[in-house]
Amino acid sequence: MLNFNYNIPTKIFFGRNKIEVLAREIKNYGNKVLFVYGGRSIKRNGLYNKITNILNENNINFWELGGVDPNPRLSSVKSGIKLCRENKIELILAVGGGSTIDCAKVIGAGYYYDGDAWDIVMDSRKIKKVLPIASVLTLAATGSEMDSGAVITNMETNEKIATIHDGMAPKFSILDPTYTFSVPKNQTAAGVADIMSHIFEVYFSNTKEAYLQNRMGEALLKTCINYGKKAIDCPENYEARSNLMWTASLAINGLLSYGKETEWSVHAMEHELSAFYDITHGVGLAILTPYWMEYALNGFTVDKFVEYGVNVWGLDANDEKYEIAHNAIRKTREYFNLLGMPSSLKEVEIDDEKLEKMAKQATIRGKLGNFKVLEAEDVLNIYKSAL
Amino acid sequence: MLNFNYNIPTKIFFGRNKIEVLAREIKNYGNKVLFVYGGRSIKRNGLYNKITNILNENNINFWELGGVDPNPRLSSVKSGIKLCRENKIELILAVGGGSTIDCAKVIGAGYYYDGDAWDIVMDSRKIKKVLPIASVLTLAATGSEMDSGAVITNMETNEKIATIHDGMAPKFSILDPTYTFSVPKNQTAAGVADIMSHIFEVYFSNTKEAYLQNRMGEALLKTCINYGKKAIDCPENYEARSNLMWTASLAINGLLSYGKETEWSVHAMEHELSAFYDITHGVGLAILTPYWMEYALNGFTVDKFVEYGVNVWGLDANDEKYEIAHNAIRKTREYFNLLGMPSSLKEVEIDDEKLEKMAKQATIRGKLGNFKVLEAEDVLNIYKSAL
Repeated sequence: MLNFNYNIPTKIFFGRNKIEVLAREIKNYGNKVLFVYGGRSIKRNGLYNKITNILNENNINFWELGGVDPNPRLSSVKSGIKLCRENKIELILAVGGGSTIDCAKVIGAGYYYDGDAWDIVMDSRKIKKVLPIASVLTLAATGSEMDSGAVITNMETNEKIATIHDGMAPKFSILDPTYTFSVPKNQTAAGVADIMSHIFEVYFSNTKEAYLQNRMGEALLKTCINYGKKAIDCPENYEARSNLMWTASLAINGLLSYGKETEWSVHAMEHELSAFYDITHGVGLAILTPYWMEYALNGFTVDKFVEYGVNVWGLDANDEKYEIAHNAIRKTREYFNLLGMPSSLKEVEIDDEKLEKMAKQATIRGKLGNFKVLEAEDVLNIYKSAL
Repeated sequence: MLNFNYNIPTKIFFGRNKIEVLAREIKNYGNKVLFVYGGRSIKRNGLYNKITNILNENNINFWELGGVDPNPRLSSVKSGIKLCRENKIELILAVGGGSTIDCAKVIGAGYYYDGDAWDIVMDSRKIKKVLPIASVLTLAATGSEMDSGAVITNMETNEKIATIHDGMAPKFSILDPTYTFSVPKNQTAAGVADIMSHIFEVYFSNTKEAYLQNRMGEALLKTCINYGKKAIDCPENYEARSNLMWTASLAINGLLSYGKETEWSVHAMEHELSAFYDITHGVGLAILTPYWMEYALNGFTVDKFVEYGVNVWGLDANDEKYEIAHNAIRKTREYFNLLGMPSSLKEVEIDDEKLEKMAKQATIRGKLGNFKVLEAEDVLNIYKSAL
């Protein structure tokens, strides 16, 4: 196990009606709130009204930044920073999924940064301080509600970049699984693929001696596999929604990655798909993951795929090891298909036109991964295999 | 999954040489430290000298409270409170295992309490504020380094009572697995039994729909089973020591219990063994656990034992369910034996003389458990079966 520093300060209020703590918790930080949200869904399902009522009834002043897109834009960040400065905001409340929370985080960091906000995305060391962030989660996927990372897209330059800073971890997040009942089937599926990908990115690792983290990773994967389809088939199944929601948070808050060398190759490759074609992050991950697995499978890595196949998919440990590995990959692809996800780039209307450019862009900050090191050529090979 | 509030604020510095952060982290809280420790072991292995050197070199003023016993005494707590008040202590640094840390926690709480310190053990609602606590851990067992509980023994009244308060969670803990290399075999074994018992106390539960927590519990149990014997046989096996140390912290910091109804019957029963006979906590747990399992096994609970047997011990799910359950219990007892732990009260020189009194005492604050509710008579039956 590698050395690590564990610090997960976010308080989580989990369960039905936990929104009741909202006003009390906000008041620990101040009385002036920037309310950040996406758009239609929280107005349609009543959450927008519920939250504005709570804020009004408790004499909390708030300003709104709505219309934050999936793959949140730098332009939204800049609008938010302006609103915060003009109104001396004391806490940023994100209501929505990961995109909304990520946007709020970088607004909070940009508030204290004098230069162009893109600078702090490109180089997180420039972040010195962050306005307090809080969230009310409506989608089980990115884990942004309990981690200190954010991903922002610059549409002008086709760049989608992750930045990270301890101060961006939300002070508190409210996780009421009933708020995910109205998430459509395709978004539920994309969320599950995103969660599973977060686990894979730290599960497949050279740090063999992190036994505990490996077993916990399998625990989370099994939870995704057990409940993903159930949540799609029965959107109001509380057991499924609550297990997925909590798994999403634990998958990327550090619990599984502390003490391990990590990978994050598939995310880096997918970010280019989203940056160039604006496809849903989880869909891109579901497509690329099995192709990455096939590409990563070799004499050095096969034992890890066997571990995965036996412990997660219940494959027979007595079978030949490459047979187990290939079956584990096949089962992964089949599971994404079962959730209704595509298995090729063609299905999301991506052809080979920009693959070379994307592969170059994906590796512009250096090679990807450790378990299977990828250079631009490798990324291109994986993209091509996924066509 | 039940509603829950998650709040685990302790920072963990994990790994070799992490003691290097000690002075820097202390200085976030002040410059006057009460240094609490047990006795011989940290003087023998050099840790006492290392820490006093760090404190001296960094001009941190400190006062010492040594000689804290296993099953820490109320008398130590009172001495500590006096030292803190006389010297205007700003942080209490516990160096040792759970007993030392528990003692430090209640000193910290007692500092702000005007009445007799036993009051705040008996009724944690009387705790309003706690001096900052920090720890350097030398034993993988109680998890006190990352939770907000403490157990104190009043030798005058033969009472061993747990108290809990958010403020008692350490601000930071330093976990260097090499500090556990010198833990003797019997204490290593008792530590593993303690960790496993913490997991059992929340694993066996009526909250069936906490699937994620159940799978995580199994992940931690498998880690204990994989490394317990290895740590005993090869005390300097870093992989074993690090996995056990981190498992100890995660077993009881809330991760496994949030969202579930919990049990804590075996702990309550064991506390009487320690209070009346001053035996090692983990030894008492290892003896009682299999007998509790046998007593708890019935038509309502058998499926949970099957889940345990199949997922933790790899038993064949196709076997008859009571057969699986009995085999799972047998394997639990055999594993404790493999670690060198006793399986009967006789082996630790406890006879039937005080069992009735202890059973009454164990249930004085009400029935135990939820998964299997125990009244005084049930506790007595379990004690008797364990003779």
